[in-house]
Amino acid sequence: MLTIGIDLGGTNIAAGLVEENRRMLIKRSVPTALPRSAEEILSEIGLLCRRICEEAGVPFEAVASVGVGTPGVVSRGVVSRADNLGFRDLPLAEKLAALTGKPVTVRNDGNAAALGEWAAGAGRGCSSLVMVTLGTGVGGGIVIGGRIHEGFNGAAGEIGHITVRAGGRRCACGSRGCLEAYSSASALIRQTRLAIRRDPGGLLARLAPTPESVTGKTAFEAMRKGDPAAAALVGTFTEMLATGIANVIQLLQPEVVCLGGGMSREGEALLAPLRDKIESKSFAGAEGARTKIVAAALGNDAGIIGAAMPEIE
Amino acid sequence: MLTIGIDLGGTNIAAGLVEENRRMLIKRSVPTALPRSAEEILSEIGLLCRRICEEAGVPFEAVASVGVGTPGVVSRGVVSRADNLGFRDLPLAEKLAALTGKPVTVRNDGNAAALGEWAAGAGRGCSSLVMVTLGTGVGGGIVIGGRIHEGFNGAAGEIGHITVRAGGRRCACGSRGCLEAYSSASALIRQTRLAIRRDPGGLLARLAPTPESVTGKTAFEAMRKGDPAAAALVGTFTEMLATGIANVIQLLQPEVVCLGGGMSREGEALLAPLRDKIESKSFAGAEGARTKIVAAALGNDAGIIGAAMPEIE
Repeated sequence: MLTIGIDLGGTNIAAGLVEENRRMLIKRSVPTALPRSAEEILSEIGLLCRRICEEAGVPFEAVASVGVGTPGVVSRGVVSRADNLGFRDLPLAEKLAALTGKPVTVRNDGNAAALGEWAAGAGRGCSSLVMVTLGTGVGGGIVIGGRIHEGFNGAAGEIGHITVRAGGRRCACGSRGCLEAYSSASALIRQTRLAIRRDPGGLLARLAPTPESVTGKTAFEAMRKGDPAAAALVGTFTEMLATGIANVIQLLQPEVVCLGGGMSREGEALLAPLRDKIESKSFAGAEGARTKIVAAALGNDAGIIGAAMPEIE
Repeated sequence: MLTIGIDLGGTNIAAGLVEENRRMLIKRSVPTALPRSAEEILSEIGLLCRRICEEAGVPFEAVASVGVGTPGVVSRGVVSRADNLGFRDLPLAEKLAALTGKPVTVRNDGNAAALGEWAAGAGRGCSSLVMVTLGTGVGGGIVIGGRIHEGFNGAAGEIGHITVRAGGRRCACGSRGCLEAYSSASALIRQTRLAIRRDPGGLLARLAPTPESVTGKTAFEAMRKGDPAAAALVGTFTEMLATGIANVIQLLQPEVVCLGGGMSREGEALLAPLRDKIESKSFAGAEGARTKIVAAALGNDAGIIGAAMPEIE
């Protein structure tokens, strides 16, 4: 059985043709080219579905279903709201099914990535997995028993907006002390710029001479070169991430926590201290089986593979 | 079909004979009478099972299964650790099955109470429920799709030990900033005693003239009489509880959050401000369906009814 998975993002629309064994036969992407209407985006997705089949030499009729991972809150095939794409109460599944003639499932993109890592990546075959995506923001997805836990309203898995320090840093969501206000790339960049302003002659300033040249990697790079200010920035980033993940563990005890997104590419420089800090906070951690903390294995493919997976009944 | 549910506590062992429709025919309890060996406790449970059948006029043969809710971490019928009962790696299900000749299921007591409220109480028939038990400590249980979410190691649902303020108050578990350090009866009692020491002539001191007479209710009572110091104590208790529950909602979006335990008896005096505070923190709260925050309906019976429920396959 072949299925198509679509990773719909604000920058690109990526599509993959996926075999039942979760191997991807072909992957193509086109720019999302915002601003565009939902109708235009849908017809672009329809074209891309046919194009990847053609390029793979597979008749479109051989495709059993299409799945889409999209930003925003999704419930029963309807995207109630995806601000960056301008979607509001969009019946995406219904419209794309009409366009392709295939059954269509729609998932939140964080959920799709979590399902992909569970099915074919770092959490292959585990009983439960929580994905934490460290990008511009902090996103996530929860897979329990091979199914996404969407919550009764489709909005579960908002790991970036769990509070780790009541009354703490202001978050873009309007609340205070959210994990995202400490452990996202944008938070780290903001703090790095502040540190450079405080010490314009320091190593951080030499690595990133202009505010625009600061990235999520700058502080990690300076820390590896022994800079104490950078170590403090990374320390806070990691400490709060450990607090957020420990909260997930206290509540859910998943078999695997999988870190994805750009910041996860720091690898063991991030993971090793993170595991130590989580261990020290984890109530059930003193004995018995522990949650494994691993890096995502599929990169951007996770979202396509997870989107392509048919619903489990 | 009749089943027996046991609520095994540090003070009492309560047993109930429960019908398929979750109605309790009879309930009896005996003192746990600690310190006693696990063998003695088990034989006490065995006797109690037979006694309630006898008193209800039901042949013991009519009982299909026995379920136990116990403190501690439970996995596959084994209590790996329950400190107050002195259990360590106790194969409780196996031993009680040998004693009674019935199939035995064992659940953590917080999980059993959550299942009971889902099956027959405040969350009857909802798709997902999280129980938060506000007693000496803060406990919990998670029910998703009619099943307890135990985590891969049996230790899920430790809501009392999620961090709400990183680096905050020291918790009995050794960590800092846990919900239990702010929103348990013992935390409120400790803070009330401190407030009395700061202002020995205040209303709090008049309501509780000795340290021993301070209870979890003292601050609520003084607040209702207009005392500002008491209002501040209850305010912190409620604020942190809202933060913890909002974290649960961001992550799981359960249909119902059910508050149980002694402190939940404050009813709307606690629930109304709590709902407001949760609303203001809830990321997905600005639109769409919201989690209902309700008081538990079954009191101590929740644990017996939840324990009595057979496993769902």
